Amino acid sequence: MTVQASSTARVLEGLRHASVSEADRWRASTDRSGYVSASAPDGVVFAESADDVVTTMRLAAANRTPVVTRGAGTGLAAGASARSGEIVLDLSRMNSILRIDPVEQLAVVQPGVLNAELNAAAGEYGLFYAPDPASTAICSIGGNIATNAGGMRCAKYGVTREAVLALQVVLADGRTLRTGRETLKGVTGYDLNALITGSEGTLGVVVEATLRLRPLPVSTATVAAFFPDFATAAAAASAVIAARIQPSLLELIDGQTLEAVDMALGTDYRSRGGAFLLAQTDGFGAYLEQDVLIEAIKPFATSFEKAADAEEADRLLMARREAIPSLEKLGRVSIGDIGVPRGRLAEVALGLEDITARTGVRIFTVVHASDGNLHPMLVLNEEDSVTEGPAKVALGEMFHLAKRLGGTLTGEHGVGLLKRDWLLPELGEVSMDVHRIIKDALDPDGILNPGKAI
Amino acid sequence: MTVQASSTARVLEGLRHASVSEADRWRASTDRSGYVSASAPDGVVFAESADDVVTTMRLAAANRTPVVTRGAGTGLAAGASARSGEIVLDLSRMNSILRIDPVEQLAVVQPGVLNAELNAAAGEYGLFYAPDPASTAICSIGGNIATNAGGMRCAKYGVTREAVLALQVVLADGRTLRTGRETLKGVTGYDLNALITGSEGTLGVVVEATLRLRPLPVSTATVAAFFPDFATAAAAASAVIAARIQPSLLELIDGQTLEAVDMALGTDYRSRGGAFLLAQTDGFGAYLEQDVLIEAIKPFATSFEKAADAEEADRLLMARREAIPSLEKLGRVSIGDIGVPRGRLAEVALGLEDITARTGVRIFTVVHASDGNLHPMLVLNEEDSVTEGPAKVALGEMFHLAKRLGGTLTGEHGVGLLKRDWLLPELGEVSMDVHRIIKDALDPDGILNPGKAI
Ligand SMILES: Cc1cc2nc3c(=O)[nH]c(=O)nc-3n(C[C@H](O)[C@H](O)[C@H](O)COP(=O)(O)OP(=O)(O)OC[C@H]3O[C@@H](n4cnc5c(N)ncnc54)[C@H](O)[C@@H]3O)c2cc1C
Ligand SMILES: Cc1cc2nc3c(=O)[nH]c(=O)nc-3n(C[C@H](O)[C@H](O)[C@H](O)COP(=O)(O)OP(=O)(O)OC[C@H]3O[C@@H](n4cnc5c(N)ncnc54)[C@H](O)[C@@H]3O)c2cc1C
Repeated sequence: MTVQASSTARVLEGLRHASVSEADRWRASTDRSGYVSASAPDGVVFAESADDVVTTMRLAAANRTPVVTRGAGTGLAAGASARSGEIVLDLSRMNSILRIDPVEQLAVVQPGVLNAELNAAAGEYGLFYAPDPASTAICSIGGNIATNAGGMRCAKYGVTREAVLALQVVLADGRTLRTGRETLKGVTGYDLNALITGSEGTLGVVVEATLRLRPLPVSTATVAAFFPDFATAAAAASAVIAARIQPSLLELIDGQTLEAVDMALGTDYRSRGGAFLLAQTDGFGAYLEQDVLIEAIKPFATSFEKAADAEEADRLLMARREAIPSLEKLGRVSIGDIGVPRGRLAEVALGLEDITARTGVRIFTVVHASDGNLHPMLVLNEEDSVTEGPAKVALGEMFHLAKRLGGTLTGEHGVGLLKRDWLLPELGEVSMDVHRIIKDALDPDGILNPGKAI
Repeated sequence: MTVQASSTARVLEGLRHASVSEADRWRASTDRSGYVSASAPDGVVFAESADDVVTTMRLAAANRTPVVTRGAGTGLAAGASARSGEIVLDLSRMNSILRIDPVEQLAVVQPGVLNAELNAAAGEYGLFYAPDPASTAICSIGGNIATNAGGMRCAKYGVTREAVLALQVVLADGRTLRTGRETLKGVTGYDLNALITGSEGTLGVVVEATLRLRPLPVSTATVAAFFPDFATAAAAASAVIAARIQPSLLELIDGQTLEAVDMALGTDYRSRGGAFLLAQTDGFGAYLEQDVLIEAIKPFATSFEKAADAEEADRLLMARREAIPSLEKLGRVSIGDIGVPRGRLAEVALGLEDITARTGVRIFTVVHASDGNLHPMLVLNEEDSVTEGPAKVALGEMFHLAKRLGGTLTGEHGVGLLKRDWLLPELGEVSMDVHRIIKDALDPDGILNPGKAI
């Protein structure tokens, strides 16, 4: 046994709800990115309360034991993937909605609550929680906060950071930090809410969150349109932005992905066009705004279709919702996540074609077009690694493409283990140094999710 | 000469654009809070470029000289008030709008650009910069960022933090940090944009900012209503929130302030009611949303009036815009800035009456009602201090009142020098400690705006 292993043993012995079963340990060595650690972590602690988290961190600090916090394990950057010498702090049992305040339009939740559960509960009051990752049914609020998760309606309503009012965070030394406040506005002290949001478990463990809810829109208008090719659809999306409206959803799907959906579902999307744009406007002016939107895309579209009711809208949304599951039938999927200025989507598509030509990796693309966040999805053979060979090369080229266009490595999924190689070229030396000194200040022994995110 | 004074002399000698004139130094000893330092700073550097700022910080670091960054000096917390032993880094000459990108809807500006100047330039493209402090005509973007400034339309469009895409920041040691990115979304690394925003010049000097612009709303609907008293107007504001609409502006003014406006302008507001609520809705659904708003406030109002056009809307807005200038005719004004949960406005009003009864300080109140941010304005005799005696007692009681109601010390003006006494009770020991270690990590010699904000 190594020194580290014995330190983890001491920590695990001291804790309730700890498991060293093979199944629990190997499950915690991976997430939904396709990456699996070469070794399993030494044990998994299933915390049932903030006190359990405090006890775990105190013991871990005393023994300098690395701790990997885990929400629902749906991450796409291997942020929650743990390995030998580490223990995993699994928060999935801390899954209570503690309070919904319909007057102040906020919710107080434990971190293990699933995104969709919170939305269902808020819906009973005519409210919703805005950040809507496509993984809503399976991802946790704690994970959403730790990755600053986005989604389809974020261009209008903001990402997770804009929804976080206050947090309770257990620090590396076991102390509990309260950040933010219940009021909508407040500038006392530094913005520690935002510092923790998106920090991927490297600065503290979120054990409670106070979140802003919003009134459900009174109307939502949906339109779907087909275009000859991606570049034309991208031009239509740019025309929507240039028309100075704010769609609540503007999703673009490329032709190859439509084909994959058709194969999986027996639909005929691809025969209707080489690219698909789905747009929603919402609120009191939803239909007036839709008129402007349609005027903007008409010159580019080969056909378009308005949803007459919610059911039809749902049917139109299907192509987008089923894109990832459909691709998963073709092979192992590695989901990219670059962001570029909104006007440069067409250039990205060209660049991705080049990458396919050079690496032989098939790339399928869906896009949050109103905020320039693309998900180019690599479809690999089942036996291919996501961290080596052509996939790694393609991922690297994707990053350089985004950078060349003034963009970023990751729009909403985070850096985790998978994207660390491109952090320095994006952030630069000074920023990396500032990240390190902040990390060292808050976690001097480096026990919180070591080697991830920064 | 003290050691400090000789260190500042060494720094000032080495710099271009440095002034040691009495006028420049005393001007930099104060802001718009009413607080004046007992001594003047040793000199003022008028930076004309980011390079000037870098040179200043390098020299200051080498000599451990405290540096107080100054924007337009309109702050209300004495954050920019400097004193003997300090030098002031005035950025008002760095006032160029470097770029407006109407396609990506963003602006790149130097910190000394005034808020209203940016809005005028954006307006030419049908865009606007959302954060709109009442001081828009006189405050700088750098100061707005350093205080995370708010304003009237922030409830709908977000405060400064939500508008900051990227920053260039000169650190205490003279290195230049780039935070954020030009894309709307991105989660590479920690949210250093947000860490700098609101840090009141204690972590770095903002020398360039990339800011999100938004399309100007196609329509804006304005309504003004009178109520018998503040509590009834507050109940109407709550009814607006409960109707699940999102006004772009919802301002409440108390009866005493109406009286002051009448005295200053010869208007008759006070005779029409004991409190005044001004509401705007905007966007494609502005008028439909206004109908819902009017239904919500009708049961409470004694009268209301819709603006037929922009001119009439402007006239209705006048009472709000002229509130502070009108009060300034009555005495020295110290502007409070507490935040509470939106449903508790009426309780604050009662609490403020108590404070007046106990301290003898007259308090006039205007409120950003849709985000629970109140500005109770103390009107003092010209010779009264804002940091001692009854004013200080009243300010302290205001804070405790906000805290009792689940609120905060400062909604948008910042802590500066004036509110430090109440920081610990609001934030708690752990948070204060985390603030200190972050400050120490980024500014180990404590030369950036020492003694302010945290
Ligand atoms: C099909 C599919 C679609 C997806 N769509 C989207 C999308 O549209 N938008 C999007 O943003 N993401 C999307 N994701 C990615 C993923 O769901 C999000 O990153 C999500 O926020 C992760 O939540 P989780 O609970 O699964 O976190 P995990 O995977 O368990 O952990 C993610 C990271 O957060 C840390 N962490 C988790 N909980 C805590 C806590 N309480 N305190 C501190 N750190 C913590 C972990 O250490 C890790 O670094 C998708 C994933 C899948 C599989
Ligand atoms: C009549 C009136 C109405 C007001 N209304 C509002 C309102 O509605 N909402 C609101 O939020 N505020 C309001 N204010 C307060 C004030 O205008 C804001 O706080 C504004 O953001 C300050 O900007 P400034 O350029 O004047 O900054 P200054 O007063 O010069 O400085 C403020 C703080 O920012 C720091 N700072 C300034 N520039 C930089 C920089 N480039 N880098 C780093 N630090 C810097 C200073 O050190 C100081 O701590 C009002 C003030 C007045 C007088």
